[in-house]
Amino acid sequence: MIRDYISLDEAIKIGRESKKELELEERIFEINAQYAVGKIAAEDVVSPKDYPSEDKSAVDGYALNSKFVLSASNSNPISMRIIGISTPDNPFEQELKGDETVRVLTGGRLPRGADSVLMDEDAIIQGEYLKVIKGLRPFQNVSFAGEDIKKGERILSRGEIISPAKLVALMETGVRNLKTFDLRIGILSTGDELLSGKVKNTTQYLLIETLKRYGYSPVNLGIAADNYGDIFSKLTKEKTDVLILTGGTGPGEHDLTVEFVRSTGKILFHGIKMRPGRTTGLGIIEGTPVFMISGLPVASLMALENVIDPLIRYWFNFQPIKDYYVKAKLNRAVVNTLGFRSYVRVRLLENFEAEPLKVTGSGVISSIINADGILTVPENVEGFPEGEEVNIKLLRC
Amino acid sequence: MIRDYISLDEAIKIGRESKKELELEERIFEINAQYAVGKIAAEDVVSPKDYPSEDKSAVDGYALNSKFVLSASNSNPISMRIIGISTPDNPFEQELKGDETVRVLTGGRLPRGADSVLMDEDAIIQGEYLKVIKGLRPFQNVSFAGEDIKKGERILSRGEIISPAKLVALMETGVRNLKTFDLRIGILSTGDELLSGKVKNTTQYLLIETLKRYGYSPVNLGIAADNYGDIFSKLTKEKTDVLILTGGTGPGEHDLTVEFVRSTGKILFHGIKMRPGRTTGLGIIEGTPVFMISGLPVASLMALENVIDPLIRYWFNFQPIKDYYVKAKLNRAVVNTLGFRSYVRVRLLENFEAEPLKVTGSGVISSIINADGILTVPENVEGFPEGEEVNIKLLRC
Repeated sequence: MIRDYISLDEAIKIGRESKKELELEERIFEINAQYAVGKIAAEDVVSPKDYPSEDKSAVDGYALNSKFVLSASNSNPISMRIIGISTPDNPFEQELKGDETVRVLTGGRLPRGADSVLMDEDAIIQGEYLKVIKGLRPFQNVSFAGEDIKKGERILSRGEIISPAKLVALMETGVRNLKTFDLRIGILSTGDELLSGKVKNTTQYLLIETLKRYGYSPVNLGIAADNYGDIFSKLTKEKTDVLILTGGTGPGEHDLTVEFVRSTGKILFHGIKMRPGRTTGLGIIEGTPVFMISGLPVASLMALENVIDPLIRYWFNFQPIKDYYVKAKLNRAVVNTLGFRSYVRVRLLENFEAEPLKVTGSGVISSIINADGILTVPENVEGFPEGEEVNIKLLRC
Repeated sequence: MIRDYISLDEAIKIGRESKKELELEERIFEINAQYAVGKIAAEDVVSPKDYPSEDKSAVDGYALNSKFVLSASNSNPISMRIIGISTPDNPFEQELKGDETVRVLTGGRLPRGADSVLMDEDAIIQGEYLKVIKGLRPFQNVSFAGEDIKKGERILSRGEIISPAKLVALMETGVRNLKTFDLRIGILSTGDELLSGKVKNTTQYLLIETLKRYGYSPVNLGIAADNYGDIFSKLTKEKTDVLILTGGTGPGEHDLTVEFVRSTGKILFHGIKMRPGRTTGLGIIEGTPVFMISGLPVASLMALENVIDPLIRYWFNFQPIKDYYVKAKLNRAVVNTLGFRSYVRVRLLENFEAEPLKVTGSGVISSIINADGILTVPENVEGFPEGEEVNIKLLRC
């Protein structure tokens, strides 16, 4: 039975301070960058070189010296002799003089003597000559060495989940290998009603799929019966870095998992003034952090997003996940119990309206189907009236 | 050389109309719901039953008849006899009478005769008796059968990418198997400069990782040299539903892929008034759609998001992907070439400010590292001034 609920801030503080008691192992693997998408970067990665590495054409066209065509116009066309081609594969090596121009393809090296590129769309070709009828600005259509990214500029931060776009940045700047972090999170669900199949263990699947998207390696430890022996044997079946126990954390008789952790290790906190997720707890067993969370899907997600992931990221010195917020007008009032932080699932409608979805246990499916984001109601706020403009945090997964 | 650029709307219209010429095979697999996350639903899925299937407690507490405790107060406490327990695993079967109450756990069936549940937090227990000091509303803390989701209500739509949350909805409502769509998209990159390694083939990796997140099955067809024979043999190496050719689509000499498609099949369009991505084209070879896109990473992504994916979704009758928009103030002006639709990558700053990133070829890496979203500038708009509030579409991946 939870008697002393603490605030989320207190819980996070206690969890952070527990770092010194934890035996955290850093399992780091160096992998080829091309396999890095979706994994967690274990170190800051900086560009090993300037990019572009040399002055290049940003378009397909003709490289020339802009000074030479300054006065070009329809009535005063200037002819340039095409003396070669510069492609990404085969740069043109000579230096251009006066009236000379060179065909360049996008990404091809800008020949010495040229300072700008006339785009194909503006090029008039007459045999071996380019007719220029409009002046060019110096540096027009040119990418200068290092203008995009400088040597030493940061591409990845430790703890960042590597996106497909970051893969491009790594490959383009020549980062072949990088260190990624493998964090194994064991998930054990408890409850005779799960074992019997009378209650479906959806929470375990939800957590596994969500943890994958966070870049972690979830380990399915299965379902334990409501007794210490079974919990212990399943919990220790595989080596994991962090443990999550679902179910049996409520204020009811089934406080079994909490009592198990208390008897096997110790409890740091149990019960947070947040909704959903108020039965969330944290303990330590032999140096391993053990989160105890509700077996209800939405409550488990809120515990993951607001307690488990932020603490793991603190313990391992990862940068936090960047969230996105949308301003929207509530189309219905939202009420809050003072002293509690509430996470209200909302659906975003056309025209930046937000519809609050049910927050009680009953709205499990409809709210999970329809939610686009979360509205946080702070502890000292009684609620928001209809029509209020609020910030909605978009769902991460 | 592209002479006739068409508008994006025209390109989409031509692409849609080409459906009748395509030989589209629907490869559908029935799989266990627990493996469905990230895949594309091949059919609408409706709930096979009411959820909850019976009246249940939404909390841990005591089930009772609210009429019996109507007048309860601190000065007039009413005692109820605790006669049993109802858990999700073991429902209480008897009917409650007058002063009887039953302990219920969250998700436990509400016993007949009860209409509400007193939460543990408000419960005072004295031996075998519950002391009630506050009235309850009828239906308080109860989830009624079907109140969350009705039998026949839609959970998934054809073409939807199945999220972890939808997995919960499927499992909770008892959907065991469902049909998913496997769409194989072959990606062949062309260019001697890619084969030689002088230019890195980042676009192929970017497309593969992004297509995976769209729920498609990308097939890496490798890199072809700049000749028809090599393109043909690599393109036909594996059976695919849709083909993407990257590179060799520009207005320069290397129009090879477009000429290849023209000579082997036919071209439907080539050249769209959009930036980046203006060299995007579509052809058909033996009933298979063949997209031709730029080999530059950002242009290829814009082609994927705005041309390829919308057309595939139309051809296969999938619902479109739901995008999210954030209102933000531009901290710098954005200019557009009239007649072109521009996709400007922006970084979202604190306080709903948006910083436009470089749009020329030169900003490949910095803009891909820093972008949070895309600002679309329509064809008939010359740009947006600094300070303008605009809608930013958040990046999907």
